[in-house]
Amino acid sequence: MVHVVLDAMGGDNAPEEIVKGAVDALASSDSITVTLCGRRADIEKALEGLDYPKDRLLIENADDVITTEEAPVMAIRRKKDSSIVKGLTLVKEKKADAFVSAGSSGAILVGGQLIVGRIKGVERPPLAPLVPSTTDKGVSLIIDCGANVDARSSHLVQFAKMGSIYMEHVIGVTNPRVAIVNIGAEEEKGNMLVKETFPLLKICPDINFIGSIEAREIPNGGADVIVCEAFVGNVILKMYEGVGKMMLKTIKGALMGSFTGKLGGLLIKPSLKGVMKTFDATEYGGAPLLGLNGLVVKVHGNATSKEVANAIRQCETFKQQNISQRIADKINIKDA
Amino acid sequence: MVHVVLDAMGGDNAPEEIVKGAVDALASSDSITVTLCGRRADIEKALEGLDYPKDRLLIENADDVITTEEAPVMAIRRKKDSSIVKGLTLVKEKKADAFVSAGSSGAILVGGQLIVGRIKGVERPPLAPLVPSTTDKGVSLIIDCGANVDARSSHLVQFAKMGSIYMEHVIGVTNPRVAIVNIGAEEEKGNMLVKETFPLLKICPDINFIGSIEAREIPNGGADVIVCEAFVGNVILKMYEGVGKMMLKTIKGALMGSFTGKLGGLLIKPSLKGVMKTFDATEYGGAPLLGLNGLVVKVHGNATSKEVANAIRQCETFKQQNISQRIADKINIKDA
Repeated sequence: MVHVVLDAMGGDNAPEEIVKGAVDALASSDSITVTLCGRRADIEKALEGLDYPKDRLLIENADDVITTEEAPVMAIRRKKDSSIVKGLTLVKEKKADAFVSAGSSGAILVGGQLIVGRIKGVERPPLAPLVPSTTDKGVSLIIDCGANVDARSSHLVQFAKMGSIYMEHVIGVTNPRVAIVNIGAEEEKGNMLVKETFPLLKICPDINFIGSIEAREIPNGGADVIVCEAFVGNVILKMYEGVGKMMLKTIKGALMGSFTGKLGGLLIKPSLKGVMKTFDATEYGGAPLLGLNGLVVKVHGNATSKEVANAIRQCETFKQQNISQRIADKINIKDA
Repeated sequence: MVHVVLDAMGGDNAPEEIVKGAVDALASSDSITVTLCGRRADIEKALEGLDYPKDRLLIENADDVITTEEAPVMAIRRKKDSSIVKGLTLVKEKKADAFVSAGSSGAILVGGQLIVGRIKGVERPPLAPLVPSTTDKGVSLIIDCGANVDARSSHLVQFAKMGSIYMEHVIGVTNPRVAIVNIGAEEEKGNMLVKETFPLLKICPDINFIGSIEAREIPNGGADVIVCEAFVGNVILKMYEGVGKMMLKTIKGALMGSFTGKLGGLLIKPSLKGVMKTFDATEYGGAPLLGLNGLVVKVHGNATSKEVANAIRQCETFKQQNISQRIADKINIKDA
């Protein structure tokens, strides 16, 4: 059994799509319980007409909402009755296993650390989204893409360990290949942080470190766990989005310019939908914030019910595989 | 008149494609002179059968070649008779205006600084390639993508000035929009370097600073001059390449899966070629190393004659527009 608290008020499509995602997840597995956290009246309205198991869908009232415009630290400290603070508190108090939200990234990251708290030994909890790549599983993990910039080498070594555990036990990659983002393949290349981290990863006994990776090799499946500091991770993540969108726009524009193009465009439409699915982040559920005393998952601000349902199912695997305990065990091993 | 020294030995396709690029550039403009620098016998062999103006194509013999495997600083110091060292020396001695090479990036960057030397006041010469974007001109400048990592805020301010001059006078963008790469749009976001640089750019009188840019907005034409430190610039550049390649591979694979897909694929082929052209870096010539006492241009290692010819023509515009003098004038103005 896994008990997931879902922020019913977070994201562009709240509460309807969030609530629908919860109902879909409940229908797909008997071992999931969901607590919807937010304004009771809004949640009940969104539930109207939907069919769901009453004993496994609970409501925790929270009158306040933290918006994406608010300064995260201030919002977490002041809005004690918000869906994010109340939801995270349920995880902290072990009344629930996981918290899922499409709301303010900043508030979720800050709240996860301040309220749920870090596993003993974890210096920084990284945010680790999956991105499409040509690996066997079709995805790679970028760790860290969070709000913690200016990382130290010891943080990156912990990211490598936590990312390996996640890819092995949640995604099912055997002996995941770990690489550090660099501007060249050679060990002597890189900025100060990479030069400092590289030798530490090399002697780290718990991971399958394969060396540096240049950014072009990330979509090409060059590694399963892509270690970098959050600023770089953020750039990687957003370049996926930006280049993907630009290419499709350019292709569309090119096809509309000629009759054969238009005809061909109609014929390839079904196949292109398959391609879009590959680039569709909703397929992979949300991005976990790793290293906390409980699971916190950030889903996209524009998440639909499908992404929400996938994120809830991801929490089930996370609990079944005992990821937090595995992280606690590995993080406190002293390296050789 | 512009006199360009071309490294005939650099790159995967040397000397044939390099020499052919020189001949093509000479055919396109009467005011270009090219000195091919490298092994005379190899160059003469590559010239066999080609038609070119003998008075505007010279050969400077250089018996040695610096390979991409060699440590740049060591190679520049020791291989005095290499095409890179001899070519750069011609620029330093004002016997030529520009040096173009598809050879070792590291050696070109190091050699540019050590041999040609910086314009007085320039702290660091940035490498600034053009990338495809949906701006009016179809390109944006990423500055810096060089080998100088761990930049300071004063470097980034200089990059913004030099990039503006280049985009305005070489590419023809009126009042180019300058933005700094960041992980959010707000001024208070970012790592230490960005937080330190942002207010300096804000008060810089010579540029049209529009604030932060998230990576996803770069392909989307969010700014003309994209300021960042070299590690981040390298990641942006290589993500273009990686995501672009992966998408085309995925689209191709999807089309081959069905009959209508195959048929549609045949029909869209001519249009797709147009798209590929947009993503074809060879269209834009090479990446200039800005801020030196003369122009140094790096073209891709796998450059064809087309890219080489474009890079040579770029040198002509650079000289006509007096870019080095403009940089010298602006870099030494103290900011308000």
